[in-house]
Amino acid sequence: MRLLQDKIRREGTVLSPSILKVDTFLNHGIDPLLMREIGREFASRFAGGGITKVLTIESSGIAPAMMTALELGVPLIFARKRKSLTLRDDVFTEKIYSYTKEEENEVTVARKLLLPGDTVLIVDDFLANGEAASGMARIAGQAGARIAGFGIVIEKSFQSGRRRLEEEGFRIEALARIRSLENGAVTFLEEPSGPLF
Amino acid sequence: MRLLQDKIRREGTVLSPSILKVDTFLNHGIDPLLMREIGREFASRFAGGGITKVLTIESSGIAPAMMTALELGVPLIFARKRKSLTLRDDVFTEKIYSYTKEEENEVTVARKLLLPGDTVLIVDDFLANGEAASGMARIAGQAGARIAGFGIVIEKSFQSGRRRLEEEGFRIEALARIRSLENGAVTFLEEPSGPLF
Repeated sequence: MRLLQDKIRREGTVLSPSILKVDTFLNHGIDPLLMREIGREFASRFAGGGITKVLTIESSGIAPAMMTALELGVPLIFARKRKSLTLRDDVFTEKIYSYTKEEENEVTVARKLLLPGDTVLIVDDFLANGEAASGMARIAGQAGARIAGFGIVIEKSFQSGRRRLEEEGFRIEALARIRSLENGAVTFLEEPSGPLF
Repeated sequence: MRLLQDKIRREGTVLSPSILKVDTFLNHGIDPLLMREIGREFASRFAGGGITKVLTIESSGIAPAMMTALELGVPLIFARKRKSLTLRDDVFTEKIYSYTKEEENEVTVARKLLLPGDTVLIVDDFLANGEAASGMARIAGQAGARIAGFGIVIEKSFQSGRRRLEEEGFRIEALARIRSLENGAVTFLEEPSGPLF
């Protein structure tokens, strides 16, 4: 998605060979028009997939997932992160490990929100090693819901997340696929060509 | 806002005389069409206010604030919550206390995102005692930004938040004002009348 790649080139900051800061338009400051285009793009790529719910995880996934759900005309669920383990039988719970924050979190979704008949599109801002994505897939699995696929805004293609999800048979649509962040520069796997959109 | 009041009546659960659960459409499960109407309503009420940024706080404020920013055609910023205090000079920081969670959090906003020339609309899902709202106002104040007002989805009018903000001279637009949650029932301050919208 050319618009997104351009935005990453212009405003993204490479903090290390594995960390890209996009806090002016995606995960702290948010560009609503870009989010709308992202929502339209995911809705278009997954059109006809019979999606009944969009699932994401707080907080950075909410804006793109919200616009995707709006375009698809289906409800959004954002999984809650929490540190402490209080057993509750009204929620699905999975553990996910954050390599960036070096901490394990639980993610939970209320059982009443995800049902066996649901077909779920999982949306997130980043795909790195696939921890969060996998956790959301396991939650959908617990609910007995079908997973239509993953809509990822930025994929760090040099990390293992896509391979891990593809090995589980999932479809992944990533709007910007980053080949490398070496030497302080962003290079994409698929360089944009042709006119904008 | 009639649509919102109807939704609260149909799907809200009164957990105690001070706690209303709205996790099917506002702060866990999200109804995107309702969020769009909320965004339109805030944009309309604050039209002509010269707003340059919408400010909210993660996570539940993001969806309604996102739609408000989209309608107004301005960027959104969501303040980050965090527990630990690492002093950093590239962020504005304020402490806020959550009475629901009984914990103090810091909220931070990157300095580069809020500027002295900005006019900020602060949006949040709930206004109770005004802790979060006040914290966001202080952050905008630190930045030297002007505050156009507060867009609140659900106001617990039996708590002190509105009084506190009005005493500071702020304009508050709340889409549903709850007079009481006593006896397991929701009563609104302004009962809806007339046709839907």
